[in-house]
Amino acid sequence: MNVFVIGIGLIGGSFAIDIKAAFDEAVIYGVDQNETHLDQALSLNIIDHKSTIEDISQADIVIVAIPVDATVNILPMILDMIDEDCLVFDVGSTKQKLCVSVEQHDKRRNYLAAHPIAGTEFSGPQAAIANLYRGKTNIICEIEKTAFKLQEKGMEIFSRLGMRIRYMDPASHDKHIAYVSHLSHISSFMLGKTVIEKEKNERDIFDMAGSGFASTVRLAKSSPAMWTPIFKHNKENVIETLEEYITNLNQFKELIENNDYEEIYKEMENTNHIRTILKGIA
Amino acid sequence: MNVFVIGIGLIGGSFAIDIKAAFDEAVIYGVDQNETHLDQALSLNIIDHKSTIEDISQADIVIVAIPVDATVNILPMILDMIDEDCLVFDVGSTKQKLCVSVEQHDKRRNYLAAHPIAGTEFSGPQAAIANLYRGKTNIICEIEKTAFKLQEKGMEIFSRLGMRIRYMDPASHDKHIAYVSHLSHISSFMLGKTVIEKEKNERDIFDMAGSGFASTVRLAKSSPAMWTPIFKHNKENVIETLEEYITNLNQFKELIENNDYEEIYKEMENTNHIRTILKGIA
Repeated sequence: MNVFVIGIGLIGGSFAIDIKAAFDEAVIYGVDQNETHLDQALSLNIIDHKSTIEDISQADIVIVAIPVDATVNILPMILDMIDEDCLVFDVGSTKQKLCVSVEQHDKRRNYLAAHPIAGTEFSGPQAAIANLYRGKTNIICEIEKTAFKLQEKGMEIFSRLGMRIRYMDPASHDKHIAYVSHLSHISSFMLGKTVIEKEKNERDIFDMAGSGFASTVRLAKSSPAMWTPIFKHNKENVIETLEEYITNLNQFKELIENNDYEEIYKEMENTNHIRTILKGIA
Repeated sequence: MNVFVIGIGLIGGSFAIDIKAAFDEAVIYGVDQNETHLDQALSLNIIDHKSTIEDISQADIVIVAIPVDATVNILPMILDMIDEDCLVFDVGSTKQKLCVSVEQHDKRRNYLAAHPIAGTEFSGPQAAIANLYRGKTNIICEIEKTAFKLQEKGMEIFSRLGMRIRYMDPASHDKHIAYVSHLSHISSFMLGKTVIEKEKNERDIFDMAGSGFASTVRLAKSSPAMWTPIFKHNKENVIETLEEYITNLNQFKELIENNDYEEIYKEMENTNHIRTILKGIA
């Protein structure tokens, strides 16, 4: 089973590691614009061979794990070149533009739109880890548009990697994920920015900030190369979530301005309900 | 050494545990309005005896670990009642109002204003843990106003508990801590609120949210009873940080609206610098 991983970073690399462990017959081919990453992936034993997009006709499985705008560009080309029994799936954080981009493609049935909700704030092949996907949700869009045999092939991989599957249409996916993922990233980046702007003396930040601050700004370490295209693809939904978030922040500010501490207490108490939700995640 | 801990929750309880371990001669007396918490603390062996504020004249050390508004009310009374060799320190997240409230007190020299930057999002005696303070920063305000012998007494405790000491005036403390702590909590609470309002189906949140979301909203589990008085005490600083944060969010939203993805990339790249800062914390 020849598995081509396009983009051998945190996400693609972690797929490579787990697939190699789960399938004796798997041979992993890495494709990446970044030659250093390819060499690292090879020396870390994440991939078996360095390869290029030109050899993709030999693939049984293609995993596209690059920024979402690059995926939109390359996906039709990959579909053009692959063997007819080959399954191509991507792992991007937006799904609608991708699904639309291959809607009319002759080989649409070879493509599976996936979004594994897994990752860390790190990037590159050295960030790839085993079992990243175990117990995580994988959101599959437009499953009915993928050939039945290739659905099975994909599900076999996701199942052996320990993922839970949820089916969703691309529009709903992009709308919900804006709330539970994209907004968190912006909130974190802007929090980091606000503090960095104010606290010119880094030593002071180290000393005064605790684990709470670290937790809240952790996502501000994320890769701009990956996240810029996500905000571009999901522009309308992201703007909507941001507007609601800003409205809530303004309301909270007004409560403080008006010394309405009873209401502030209630706001926080109501939101404490997040404990139950987070238990479901952790 | 009789140690009276007023408020035997996460913070006070963790002090009790570590002081008991570090000082053979320490006898811990718990004082709390919540009788259930007192009983829990006793059965968890966090305190040696249940006590009341009336017995505080027997104390060698008093640790005040209750919400900051309650501390302002009770602190002068405690100072009235204690023995002249007794050290009283508080651990609140705001310092200015407290320092002002005892400025003219006859026993001002018995008080040490402290803020250990340590904690978790949990509360109550069952949340108390050993070594919570090891390696953490303890910010001391107006050290010169505490009697020299009592400074030593306090430092001996902080040192045995493994804390690093930083000295700061109360106004600077309240200003900086608004950025690196209070703002994070509001950001987290409002993020939680925004998502909960939108996603009525909790199952959907569980399934779609990953560790990134969990990390960003973790602080929204925090206690409203503790945090409402903090926002009240630090009103002006908190409003200022909130305004800057909201301005940054609005600017980011405008960049998305204007499709200025180059600038969005740069914003995130600049903020990635937080990696260095977080290394200093972790």
